[in-house]
Amino acid sequence: MDSTQVTWHAHAVVRPRGCVVWFTGLSGCGKSTVANLVDQKLHELGCGSFVLDGDNIRHGLNASPAMLAETFDDAFAQRFGLGFSALDRAENIRRIACVAELFCEAGVVALTAFVSPYREDREAARAAIERQGEEGDFIEVFVDTPLEICEQRDPKGLYKQARAGKLPGFTGIDAPYEAPASAEIHLAAGEKSPPALADEVIAYLRSQGKIR
Amino acid sequence: MDSTQVTWHAHAVVRPRGCVVWFTGLSGCGKSTVANLVDQKLHELGCGSFVLDGDNIRHGLNASPAMLAETFDDAFAQRFGLGFSALDRAENIRRIACVAELFCEAGVVALTAFVSPYREDREAARAAIERQGEEGDFIEVFVDTPLEICEQRDPKGLYKQARAGKLPGFTGIDAPYEAPASAEIHLAAGEKSPPALADEVIAYLRSQGKIR
Repeated sequence: MDSTQVTWHAHAVVRPRGCVVWFTGLSGCGKSTVANLVDQKLHELGCGSFVLDGDNIRHGLNASPAMLAETFDDAFAQRFGLGFSALDRAENIRRIACVAELFCEAGVVALTAFVSPYREDREAARAAIERQGEEGDFIEVFVDTPLEICEQRDPKGLYKQARAGKLPGFTGIDAPYEAPASAEIHLAAGEKSPPALADEVIAYLRSQGKIR
Repeated sequence: MDSTQVTWHAHAVVRPRGCVVWFTGLSGCGKSTVANLVDQKLHELGCGSFVLDGDNIRHGLNASPAMLAETFDDAFAQRFGLGFSALDRAENIRRIACVAELFCEAGVVALTAFVSPYREDREAARAAIERQGEEGDFIEVFVDTPLEICEQRDPKGLYKQARAGKLPGFTGIDAPYEAPASAEIHLAAGEKSPPALADEVIAYLRSQGKIR
């Protein structure tokens, strides 16, 4: 019997888990800004981290039917592209949670920045991540900026379009935002600057032993 | 105007990219074993890496309808669960490629270990990863173990079931395996031990400047 006939069992590398920092809040509330500042600070601390947001998820993993149709045939694009129905939004969040969980397993702090307006979807994300790991792996951050301020900022002009009836189902205008009842971190984001908010997140992570 | 009214532009952290090492080959060829050994070696070298395989993908991101039905309602499970049709297999590989690309962006070496029997699907994965990054980010590894050896090993008893007609569409038995024509790494996996094969992969990564 030579060495190629041995059954090899390569053990998976045991790594300290990362965690998932799940930012939620209205469009324009500052989720991405704060998440990217936290990412920057973790990077400076030598701690592996990564931001999952619309930019890198909606153009790849959770592409729309129209985007998929650029590369795949129509049957494929229609079958697997994600739209904005309640089912599709739930699947959008489910996939993001699965990917965040993989980063967590890889020892990376995953920072997710999506409106994620429905409590049920966020709770499903929490459950999926804690099922693979442990309690404390999912840290919900409510970026609590009043609607008036978000609408006044309107960095992408989306509120203006929504008010004009061009974006039906827009969160905060004609679709609900279900605020977290007991997020691990509540950011009074209408009153403080993004760097100050990012410091609050870093302080929490440190207090929980997630970073040194 | 106070600081909360400033529009903040947090720049994404600029990290050196990782890469995607895409193992392909028949069931039982040694993909997972070699991928996990490479993961171990990269970990020892202080290089961030992670294995994506059936264990962590099929139970989460690419769950079957039956698995999704444990947590979600039937309409959701049927709409989004993945089976083994040609379309579903293509979507399976597409999502894995998207996740591997995100790890690559995060500076991690993503090691994927899936049969991925169709050349077209692997080429789509390569295109998706190189579109976001650059040529050289996708490294295809053909784990070339003869079918007879895979079937003799049959670590999970799948070939036996397939020969008994219980697993229709099983790659190598009644579904084709399309071998890569020009993989970056060709492993003569029937003739060498897994640690020797893992060393070949590490040597390649080093030669390409992917690890120091």
